[in-house]
Amino acid sequence: MPTTHRIEVELGERSYPIVIGRGLLGGNFAVSDYIRGTDCLVVSNETVAPLYLEKLLPNLGGRTTHNISIADGEAFKTVATLQQILDELVRTGSSRDTTVVALGGGVVGDIAGFAAACYMRGVAFVQVPTTLLAQVDSSVGGKTGVNHPQGKNLIGAFHQPQLVLIDTDTLNTLDQRELKAGLAEVIKYGAICDPEFFEWLEDNIPALLEKDPDALAHAIRRSCEIKAEVVAEDEREAGRRAILNFGHTFGHAIERCQGYGEWLHGEAVAAGMIMAAGLSGIDRDDVGRLRNLVAAAGLPVEPPSIAPADWLAAMGMDKKVQRKKLRFVLLERLGHAFTTTDYDDGRLQQLIGSEA
Amino acid sequence: MPTTHRIEVELGERSYPIVIGRGLLGGNFAVSDYIRGTDCLVVSNETVAPLYLEKLLPNLGGRTTHNISIADGEAFKTVATLQQILDELVRTGSSRDTTVVALGGGVVGDIAGFAAACYMRGVAFVQVPTTLLAQVDSSVGGKTGVNHPQGKNLIGAFHQPQLVLIDTDTLNTLDQRELKAGLAEVIKYGAICDPEFFEWLEDNIPALLEKDPDALAHAIRRSCEIKAEVVAEDEREAGRRAILNFGHTFGHAIERCQGYGEWLHGEAVAAGMIMAAGLSGIDRDDVGRLRNLVAAAGLPVEPPSIAPADWLAAMGMDKKVQRKKLRFVLLERLGHAFTTTDYDDGRLQQLIGSEA
Repeated sequence: MPTTHRIEVELGERSYPIVIGRGLLGGNFAVSDYIRGTDCLVVSNETVAPLYLEKLLPNLGGRTTHNISIADGEAFKTVATLQQILDELVRTGSSRDTTVVALGGGVVGDIAGFAAACYMRGVAFVQVPTTLLAQVDSSVGGKTGVNHPQGKNLIGAFHQPQLVLIDTDTLNTLDQRELKAGLAEVIKYGAICDPEFFEWLEDNIPALLEKDPDALAHAIRRSCEIKAEVVAEDEREAGRRAILNFGHTFGHAIERCQGYGEWLHGEAVAAGMIMAAGLSGIDRDDVGRLRNLVAAAGLPVEPPSIAPADWLAAMGMDKKVQRKKLRFVLLERLGHAFTTTDYDDGRLQQLIGSEA
Repeated sequence: MPTTHRIEVELGERSYPIVIGRGLLGGNFAVSDYIRGTDCLVVSNETVAPLYLEKLLPNLGGRTTHNISIADGEAFKTVATLQQILDELVRTGSSRDTTVVALGGGVVGDIAGFAAACYMRGVAFVQVPTTLLAQVDSSVGGKTGVNHPQGKNLIGAFHQPQLVLIDTDTLNTLDQRELKAGLAEVIKYGAICDPEFFEWLEDNIPALLEKDPDALAHAIRRSCEIKAEVVAEDEREAGRRAILNFGHTFGHAIERCQGYGEWLHGEAVAAGMIMAAGLSGIDRDDVGRLRNLVAAAGLPVEPPSIAPADWLAAMGMDKKVQRKKLRFVLLERLGHAFTTTDYDDGRLQQLIGSEA
C-alpha cells in the first residue's frame, strides 16, 4: 500500500486530520470513521462528479446519501448556488445529524462548507479536494463562503471540517492550467515561510508539472504542514494567519477587474506575489528568483492591463483593509513574510502604473 | 437615576453583559464603550426606527453610522432581506471593523445578527431589543438566522453579541398583543426552571399586562438570568439548552401550518406549551395552573385547527428532530423540564386530534 501522510490541524475541540495519499478514494482509507451521523449530502460539480462520485460513495459506510452537482467555476460561487444546496438539504429532510461532503475544487469546498456552516446553524462537514489548489490551500483552515458581486468571499463563515481527505490520484485528471494555478499557492508557502522548500521547488518544478507522484506528494504535504501550523496559531485571522494572503490583495483586484473566472485565482495570485515582492523593497535577486519560479511554473509574471484608478477601487473593497488604509503582506526576505500598513506609496503607485 | 441590572453571559472569550434598565437609550448607559471599531450599521425596521433610532444614535460615540430599515414582520425574515443588509454593508464600504447594531424585535435581531455573522466571516454585533419577546429571549444567547420556506430558522449561525442593551422604557410603545406574546416566553422560564418565579408570575400577571415598570423589570431580569445560565452551560445546544425549546416543537408547527406571522411566535408557543405539558403526563393540576397562567396573560390555550397529517409533517421538519424520531421537551413537574424521544405516542396522537 502506498504511503499515507497524516497532518493534525490543532484547534482544540475543533481539531481534525488532513490525510494525504494515493488511492484513498479506492478504499485505502476508512473515510467512514470520520463521518458523524446517519446521512450525507455530497456536493460536487458537473466536471468532478462523473469522475469521482462513484469512487467516493462506497467509502461512506452505507449511510443514506444524497448528492447535488453545482455548475463548475468561480462565477457560480454565489448566494444563488448556496441557496440551491440549502434547498437540497431541506428537500432531503436533512437534520443536525447530516454530514456535508465537498467533492471538488475550491469553489465546491467553499460553498459546501458555508452551506454546512449555515444549515441549522452548523452541521458536520468533510472536505475531499480534487484540485491542487484546493488540496494545498482552500480545503484546510475552515474558511468558507461565497462571493458578492462587489468582492470575493465577502459572505462566509469559519467552519472547520471533520476531515480533509486528499487522494493525490485525483490530480491525474486535473487540467494542466488548473495544476499550474495550484502551484502558485505552493510557491507562496515557500516564499512566506520556508526558504528550503522554496529551493526545493526551484529544483522540482519540472517534475511537478509532469505530475510526478512523489514530487506532488511532497509539495502537498509541506504546503499543508505550513498551513496547518499557521491556522492552529491564529484560527480566525486576528494576526499571523494574514501572511497566507501574500499576493492576494493584488490578486483579488486582478480577479475583480477581469471578472471572476477570466484569470484563475492561482494565476492572479502568481502575478500578485511578484507585485507584492516588488512592493516589499527586498533584494532584486530575490524578486528575480520568485519571478523565475513563477515563470517556470507556467504562471503569469505580469498583471493584465488595469487602470490605476481601477486597481485602487478594487483593492479598496478588499477584505484585508482596516480603517480604510491598505494592509499588505510583504516579504522581509524570501521565506519570511509580515503584514503592514506602512509601505512605500510611491512604489505602489509605480506598480499599478500610476504617473503619481 | 433608576436602578440598572447587569447580568453576565459567561462564555469565555465570547462573554458579554446584558444590561437592563429604564432610560438607557436616553444616556443612562455608556453604550459606546461596548462598540468596537470606527463604524456602525444600525439595522431596524419601519416601525421601530421612527421611535428609537434618533435616541440611539447619540449613544454611538460619534462613529460613522449608517442605518437600514427592513420591513416589519416574521414574513420578512428571509434570505432576501438578509441580502439587503449584506448589500448595505458592502455599499457603505464596511470593513471587519464595523459593528452591526440591531434595534428592534426578534426578527431584526435574528437577521441583523446573522448578517454580522456572515459579513467578512463575522463582524461585531450589539443587540438593542425593543420588544418583550426579544428582551427575554431572542436577543440573548447568540442564535441568529432566517427562515426557509420549509421551516423556521433553518439557515443561521451562532454569533454572540458584544452587548445586549435592554431599555425597558421601549416597552411603553409596544403593542399589547406583542407584550402578551413576550409573556409566553417569560412563563416558559418559570415552567421549565423556576417554580418560585412561576408562582410570582401567577400573582403578577395583571401588573405585567398593565406594563408596571417594576414588575416588567423583575420579569425581564429573572428571564435573562435563567437564559444566561442555561446558555453558559451549553452554548451550541448540544444538550441542556434544548429545554429552552419547551412548547416550541408544537409552536413552530402551528406557525408553519398557519403561515408565519398569522399567529405570533409567542402565541404559538403559548398553546404549544400547554400541549407539551399534556404530553408530559404530569399532574392535571399542574397542567391546569399552566393553562390558567397562559389564559390570564391573554394568550391562546388551544392550537388552531390543524389536520393530524399536517401536524406531523410540520413537526417532521422541525429542527429538534434527531434520526427521524421526534425529540420533545417535557415537564417532570412544573419548574423542571427535560428532553426526550421517549414519549407516549397515543397521547401525542390524541393531542393532534388523530383517531389512531
